[in-house]
Amino acid sequence: MRIGELSNRAGIPVPTIKYYLREGLLPAGELTSPNQAQYGERHVHRLKLVRALLDTGGLSIASARSVLASIDAPDVSLHETLGVAQQAVSPPPTGCAGPQWQLALAEADAWVRRRGWQVRPGSPAGSSLAHLLLTLRDLGQDGLLGLLDEYAAAAERLAAAEVDVLGRRTGDPDHLVEGVVLGTVLGDALLAAMHRLACEDASQRAFGAAAAERAALG
Amino acid sequence: MRIGELSNRAGIPVPTIKYYLREGLLPAGELTSPNQAQYGERHVHRLKLVRALLDTGGLSIASARSVLASIDAPDVSLHETLGVAQQAVSPPPTGCAGPQWQLALAEADAWVRRRGWQVRPGSPAGSSLAHLLLTLRDLGQDGLLGLLDEYAAAAERLAAAEVDVLGRRTGDPDHLVEGVVLGTVLGDALLAAMHRLACEDASQRAFGAAAAERAALG
Repeated sequence: MRIGELSNRAGIPVPTIKYYLREGLLPAGELTSPNQAQYGERHVHRLKLVRALLDTGGLSIASARSVLASIDAPDVSLHETLGVAQQAVSPPPTGCAGPQWQLALAEADAWVRRRGWQVRPGSPAGSSLAHLLLTLRDLGQDGLLGLLDEYAAAAERLAAAEVDVLGRRTGDPDHLVEGVVLGTVLGDALLAAMHRLACEDASQRAFGAAAAERAALG
Repeated sequence: MRIGELSNRAGIPVPTIKYYLREGLLPAGELTSPNQAQYGERHVHRLKLVRALLDTGGLSIASARSVLASIDAPDVSLHETLGVAQQAVSPPPTGCAGPQWQLALAEADAWVRRRGWQVRPGSPAGSSLAHLLLTLRDLGQDGLLGLLDEYAAAAERLAAAEVDVLGRRTGDPDHLVEGVVLGTVLGDALLAAMHRLACEDASQRAFGAAAAERAALG
């Protein structure tokens, strides 16, 4: 199909498709003349994947490019691809240095080991955890720190369910790799949306009356 | 204390503190001479809060400013403050329009109602959920869609535990408001970090061997 039909099929304007081509997010079509290229079903699918990473996952163009490159590379292991996807969704925490930060990193590492999780040392999620430990303690939010195991148990159950769902599609290894990446990027977003909805509900139930009272007093 | 001591206490350079003052993230100190201001403990605490929102929560300066303003406003209800915090962490999904998008919004709304959650219609988390429903379906990731109730159950349990922890600090309403905001911003980040760690662990267990095999074949 020509670029106009590709645009209709994917619901994405032609100039945006050309931008993705220039940015290396979409492979070039097959040239049928110097000014004419043909696109196929894999381009339609790739465009949906690009939109999912950019719009739903909130990735930058550069992060999306590195995630897509690792999906495409035939000699990159599933586990390495997962690492790239995790890096893309967890930018390294800023302003971290010094002995306090080293201690927090070691503490997060020890916590992960105690939990029995098989995670590479130095993973971006480990750094995020260390940063959160420091921040919560600094702000005197010991209550949330006391919930670490509850967060972990919830995350474990979900990860097991996700991997189970993804593992059923063993026929096509490319689909598996894509699924693992989407599980990381979109699973994160799904969990965040659910968490915010559940927080609003729980806060409404617990504090709804108190808040109304406070507003009346205020 | 003077700005130099404030800088030492909070571990933040003086020029950064001056930037936060200009951006309205930190209230001005008490002027003791035209060029000299005094700062107190609430400034130390506020600086930690600002760093938590910017660095750990990943909020923009503008979003952090609106969250802090709603924490400070005496006549804003807890529930409204939570709404502002949720808006800050969930930028509205881009590129959404048309009948398909309206259907997805209605579907997300109906799903939330079926779950029995008390959530205002039009909440940003509801839009995020609608966007994810559309995206996952578009990409043929029905497996993850099948896990919606698992995500919801995990989120519900966590939200209940968070609200329980926060509710114990009823003595100080300001602390409660701050806790609800931090629960939203940092609870999200904590859950995301845990989810990524658990995913890496689950993927290592499920696909570690398969990936190694694939790499050897590749």
